[in-house]
Amino acid sequence: MIPANTARLLVSCPDQHGIVAAVSAFLLRRDANVTDAQQHATAPEGGTFFMRMEFRIEGLPAKLDALRSAFRAEVADVFGMDVSIRHLARRKRIAILVSKYDHALVELLYRHRAGELDVDLTAVVSNHDDLRGLVEGFGIPYHFLPVAKRDKATQERSVLDLVGAVDLVVLARYMQILSPAFVQALAGRIINIHHSFLPAFVGANPYRHAYNRGVKLIGATAHFVTEHLDEGPIIEQDVARVTHRHDVPDLMRIGREIERAVLAKAVMAFVEDRVLVYGNKTVVFD
Amino acid sequence: MIPANTARLLVSCPDQHGIVAAVSAFLLRRDANVTDAQQHATAPEGGTFFMRMEFRIEGLPAKLDALRSAFRAEVADVFGMDVSIRHLARRKRIAILVSKYDHALVELLYRHRAGELDVDLTAVVSNHDDLRGLVEGFGIPYHFLPVAKRDKATQERSVLDLVGAVDLVVLARYMQILSPAFVQALAGRIINIHHSFLPAFVGANPYRHAYNRGVKLIGATAHFVTEHLDEGPIIEQDVARVTHRHDVPDLMRIGREIERAVLAKAVMAFVEDRVLVYGNKTVVFD
Amino acid sequence: MIPANTARLLVSCPDQHGIVAAVSAFLLRRDANVTDAQQHATAPEGGTFFMRMEFRIEGLPAKLDALRSAFRAEVADVFGMDVSIRHLARRKRIAILVSKYDHALVELLYRHRAGELDVDLTAVVSNHDDLRGLVEGFGIPYHFLPVAKRDKATQERSVLDLVGAVDLVVLARYMQILSPAFVQALAGRIINIHHSFLPAFVGANPYRHAYNRGVKLIGATAHFVTEHLDEGPIIEQDVARVTHRHDVPDLMRIGREIERAVLAKAVMAFVEDRVLVYGNKTVVFD
Amino acid sequence: MIPANTARLLVSCPDQHGIVAAVSAFLLRRDANVTDAQQHATAPEGGTFFMRMEFRIEGLPAKLDALRSAFRAEVADVFGMDVSIRHLARRKRIAILVSKYDHALVELLYRHRAGELDVDLTAVVSNHDDLRGLVEGFGIPYHFLPVAKRDKATQERSVLDLVGAVDLVVLARYMQILSPAFVQALAGRIINIHHSFLPAFVGANPYRHAYNRGVKLIGATAHFVTEHLDEGPIIEQDVARVTHRHDVPDLMRIGREIERAVLAKAVMAFVEDRVLVYGNKTVVFD
Repeated sequence: MIPANTARLLVSCPDQHGIVAAVSAFLLRRDANVTDAQQHATAPEGGTFFMRMEFRIEGLPAKLDALRSAFRAEVADVFGMDVSIRHLARRKRIAILVSKYDHALVELLYRHRAGELDVDLTAVVSNHDDLRGLVEGFGIPYHFLPVAKRDKATQERSVLDLVGAVDLVVLARYMQILSPAFVQALAGRIINIHHSFLPAFVGANPYRHAYNRGVKLIGATAHFVTEHLDEGPIIEQDVARVTHRHDVPDLMRIGREIERAVLAKAVMAFVEDRVLVYGNKTVVFD
Repeated sequence: MIPANTARLLVSCPDQHGIVAAVSAFLLRRDANVTDAQQHATAPEGGTFFMRMEFRIEGLPAKLDALRSAFRAEVADVFGMDVSIRHLARRKRIAILVSKYDHALVELLYRHRAGELDVDLTAVVSNHDDLRGLVEGFGIPYHFLPVAKRDKATQERSVLDLVGAVDLVVLARYMQILSPAFVQALAGRIINIHHSFLPAFVGANPYRHAYNRGVKLIGATAHFVTEHLDEGPIIEQDVARVTHRHDVPDLMRIGREIERAVLAKAVMAFVEDRVLVYGNKTVVFD
Repeated sequence: MIPANTARLLVSCPDQHGIVAAVSAFLLRRDANVTDAQQHATAPEGGTFFMRMEFRIEGLPAKLDALRSAFRAEVADVFGMDVSIRHLARRKRIAILVSKYDHALVELLYRHRAGELDVDLTAVVSNHDDLRGLVEGFGIPYHFLPVAKRDKATQERSVLDLVGAVDLVVLARYMQILSPAFVQALAGRIINIHHSFLPAFVGANPYRHAYNRGVKLIGATAHFVTEHLDEGPIIEQDVARVTHRHDVPDLMRIGREIERAVLAKAVMAFVEDRVLVYGNKTVVFD
Repeated sequence: MIPANTARLLVSCPDQHGIVAAVSAFLLRRDANVTDAQQHATAPEGGTFFMRMEFRIEGLPAKLDALRSAFRAEVADVFGMDVSIRHLARRKRIAILVSKYDHALVELLYRHRAGELDVDLTAVVSNHDDLRGLVEGFGIPYHFLPVAKRDKATQERSVLDLVGAVDLVVLARYMQILSPAFVQALAGRIINIHHSFLPAFVGANPYRHAYNRGVKLIGATAHFVTEHLDEGPIIEQDVARVTHRHDVPDLMRIGREIERAVLAKAVMAFVEDRVLVYGNKTVVFD
């Protein structure tokens, strides 16, 4: 099942003539079979160019280091590219941070067990002990790291020690504000689910605010976490229709479905190397 | 085609026991055939109660004044109700204010001609003369009332004189800020279409702001106009999905479709007596 | 949390004058507080009338039998009504039938544990033993009742013995055709999820057929089971967008999300007494 | 506004190594600036490969014939490609066939006038004279070609003579069955809007059938017309939610909105060279 001969190439660089020709000629010389390719330029002229290619090469594992070096020398250096070539046999490593709400967590655990979310789920970390049974029932290690009063830093260091070198930390309704130091230590590797269609209802209690404003749609937003709360690059959003008949608990119930679907979709996109960030925005390939 | 014997009753009052029993007993005594009924209370106890009933009574036109008086005496005064009984043979009168964008206007003109929007469209008023041919082609009077520099008040008085006693003024992308005096003169009778999913992107250039923020959904909101810009009671909202491939003109194009659908839906709901306002929110019956 | 003084009244009868007046007067005489009411007539004249009322009466449990008798004598017999008055303190009893696919099952188990699906989940029954660990992990009894070759009847009798007097049997991707005898024994009490937007792609392998036809939307349908496969009254449907990029396994993955959402929504509507059947169609109140 | 130096390349061929490298190297040699590129293979191995590229070349009009010849010799013949290179300054020519319903027609006329549908709208042809005023009001020639009893062939020949060498004929609710001869004369160049989510409710009166079946979603499908009624390759579909409250005229009204949006989307995709057909299916690039 593990695609031992398959890799994904992600490229970003200043847009210029000849990029696709150079990349595809390089892969052709290695006898690669390109099975998927998508590209995007942020402007018709003078923008940034992004490309995602999936390819197979016979006996890839043994050739991987040489391939990376050659690509750098023959292509990337020429065009000033940021490049990653990821061998799919190396699963991404993900940790989940959670507090007491379990809906987004269960969605991820379920998809992991179903094989849709094909990653190493290294740990679930929580500042509460409530969800231990649930998480361990799925066979995933659960770590209870409470936040001491007036000393969040100690807990954050423990979390960092624990999650270590993961590719991604998912905040599945983690109800703690992260310090700038924590965010920087994992820069570009934290995805949060916010329970509103940002930029509406930034901050706490968005369902209460949505109810008070009388909106006819509520939503959820999955985004990368930056130092500015709820302002990082958006990966995925969705909404559901509500009416005058719904009170705040109804909005929370309806919202749970959107939250878990949106977060799962964003995490899947990240795992499948379909998300690229530029400035405060994202390219999300299909 | 005109339902000569049909009327709609709209009621709002403090919620209390016996309202439905009293209203339905009253209608039964008049031998009314209730063809549709919907109700809503804003809280299980101590809220506000809203009801919309559609009913037929043989020979209604001749009995209408007596019916209204009797309902007031026998029911409304007892429960402290706000009441309106509208005879459907009397079409609502609507005026449209527009500037240069025509998409929302064309949608309303088309639905009017198709018979879906069954109202007297008394006038289209614009601060530009661009859309005269289009509007007159649909057989609707067009009035060009330009706004003089430093004297918006004169134009607003002309508009008020012209639209007079309409039931509703629709702002179909009218690009002028209305004065408080104008809004108060038509309180509760102005519906605007704003080109974002409020409360996100209040104010000017929402598509530009949506592009800059990198949202994955854009939207539109139809709302009653109050003195506070973009903050009146919301009647209808919808969104469409956008991606990194869409630039600002794309968002405007995609947004036009949402704007016209949302505005048309809100106007239809108003015309069919399905919208009731409480505080800064709306009940919109199906 | 159990609403000890709350009940729901469901009524259906030939449409005629005075129904609402009679029902609401009856409830007013019992000092009931009506907290929600919805009604529908299938035609302006001569149709069938449906009503759902939720109400509270102080000390309801002790008065319930008398209330039912009185309603029958004073109202139901007069109008020829089918009536049910359900005391909410008596939770509905539900059994789930499943084979090997677990997505719809997990959705129901999760909602049950989260308290959204507020029922007695009496049993999960399967013709395979694969999902035992999952189900027992949620604290629900699991029964493995395999189907012997050439003798489905024996297994069906065992299932019937086991599920007994439940209010509802949910087929959460149960991959066995039910016999007419089984369906009749549970008439009106079986909800199935079919993995297409019926009536498109009746029968087996709908995702394969959808792929071959090249549709741009795939869907799922929750319906009551009758003797005619996939032809019972539809309760809920939804769709998701697919493209040329999706192969059959993709459709199955995307479809799983629709299936579980649609089934959960239908089961919730049934549990909350919002579904009424007439002919081969349903009224589903909000 | 006309992009004089821009062209679109559409390619389909058996999937094989080196296609992208060859095409992009060819364009690089001509100093083309590729502004958009999308590709799709119908299977990981042994499928059909499709590509759409948009590119700019200085002084393109004068170089176009040479470019086509060179591409054929240097690339297309090598890979066995079907190729089209379309210069965007040459607008596509479109004719619309219509009967009495005007909603889909008005949508196309409006988008044409608004500049969204950037084509030469050469004619509207109808078997009725009802919509002449509407169409001529938009400045488009209207041709009334009635169908004589027992002689549809004569009218079809007149239609063919009239629409001549258009790139596309749009059936905007044209209520005549087309003969196989007519369809073959315009093979691959007729798009129809069918008022159901195909393959559900093939044939006449789909809204009536949808009502009788009690579906909770109604839809519309835009597809290429082939000799088999309602069975051609699907380009676009969408649905809207309906409830027990909607009767057949409501379904028709709600359906009109879906029909016109779906047809417009399909026609726009065709015009922008985003639709490729293989077998009975379509690739629709974004």
